[in-house]
Amino acid sequence: MRRFTEERDWEQFHDPKSLLLALVGEVGELAELFQWLPAEHAAEEAHEEPLRARVGEEMADVLLYLVRLADVLDIDLAAVSRAKMERNALKHALPGGAPSRGAPQARLSD
Amino acid sequence: MRRFTEERDWEQFHDPKSLLLALVGEVGELAELFQWLPAEHAAEEAHEEPLRARVGEEMADVLLYLVRLADVLDIDLAAVSRAKMERNALKHALPGGAPSRGAPQARLSD
Amino acid sequence: MRRFTEERDWEQFHDPKSLLLALVGEVGELAELFQWLPAEHAAEEAHEEPLRARVGEEMADVLLYLVRLADVLDIDLAAVSRAKMERNALKHALPGGAPSRGAPQARLSD
Amino acid sequence: MRRFTEERDWEQFHDPKSLLLALVGEVGELAELFQWLPAEHAAEEAHEEPLRARVGEEMADVLLYLVRLADVLDIDLAAVSRAKMERNALKHALPGGAPSRGAPQARLSD
Repeated sequence: MRRFTEERDWEQFHDPKSLLLALVGEVGELAELFQWLPAEHAAEEAHEEPLRARVGEEMADVLLYLVRLADVLDIDLAAVSRAKMERNALKHALPGGAPSRGAPQARLSD
Repeated sequence: MRRFTEERDWEQFHDPKSLLLALVGEVGELAELFQWLPAEHAAEEAHEEPLRARVGEEMADVLLYLVRLADVLDIDLAAVSRAKMERNALKHALPGGAPSRGAPQARLSD
Repeated sequence: MRRFTEERDWEQFHDPKSLLLALVGEVGELAELFQWLPAEHAAEEAHEEPLRARVGEEMADVLLYLVRLADVLDIDLAAVSRAKMERNALKHALPGGAPSRGAPQARLSD
Repeated sequence: MRRFTEERDWEQFHDPKSLLLALVGEVGELAELFQWLPAEHAAEEAHEEPLRARVGEEMADVLLYLVRLADVLDIDLAAVSRAKMERNALKHALPGGAPSRGAPQARLSD
């Protein structure tokens, strides 16, 4: 993606605040696909075409801007995410010991 | 991540609208790290610690919820994103032919 | 609010992209308050303290950045919103004629 | 707006999580209008038509969903916002005493 952007002389537009707003734009498009779906059937409805393909497209757009932002900032997003998953696994360790269940722990982030 | 979630009985919370709002929350935290940085020095400042690590953490959080959402919807996010990058490369083809430069084309999404 | 900002010399920070990212940050905080609430009880639960007060605070934050952005751009947000509501009332006119009901029309925006 | 919504039988769609995602969608549309504008000229460019009118429309959409959400939750958004502005004025009091200037204080929220 870096080469793709450099070859097109787009680097001047790809400062972090612009990329972040572009990411927000794509998250907004993704939100619009789900906003009026009844919560309890949203997953089911999003498995059906044509919605499924549109959701995939918008999610890819979010990912591409996220990856581009990581690139601009020289952040190894895969490594940071892996490390985070491992910390989460430790923090929300399963039993033998006490299980950690329920809403406050449903977070994948810290 | 699917196993991680199932083992903890979190699936009940991970409907698409909830995951989307969680993703919005993480995007918001990422935005807060950049909001008052001068646009022209934002990349530079985000290369310095401790900001760099915090940005990486928030970006990983966004990614984890995006991946979890893809998982819930059985969407192969990597494949869709790759296909999208290839379409972009075709659409914004470089010269020999006419170059495609400038702001309207700075989008990585369609 | 303009006077408040000028007196503190904050105008330099209040360019539209920065204000937008600040607004995104507040929307993210609002999203975090709702993300794991079951959709069908979210309204009910948000009527209870202390959640109710926190939701009000975050909504006020969103509003303040929106009003500040309107101020920076010399947009009369109240007038534009009123005009929009009136157009909506025309567009989704009630019967005598055919009613306009259901999900696609649940939008308050165009 | 409450009457407008009730008359159209839209209340079933207007649970808080759906309204929040709709608000996120509108914030995304607003972000898209600004994303590639150079930060230092964004305000200036947004003063020109046709951009100015489009920005006003999207801001009104954000406001309408915010007001609708407040309505669903019985929150007096104007009162909460006024109280918040007053607290801000106290917290960031001007001199005689020490002035409070600069980036960390550029927040209008707490």
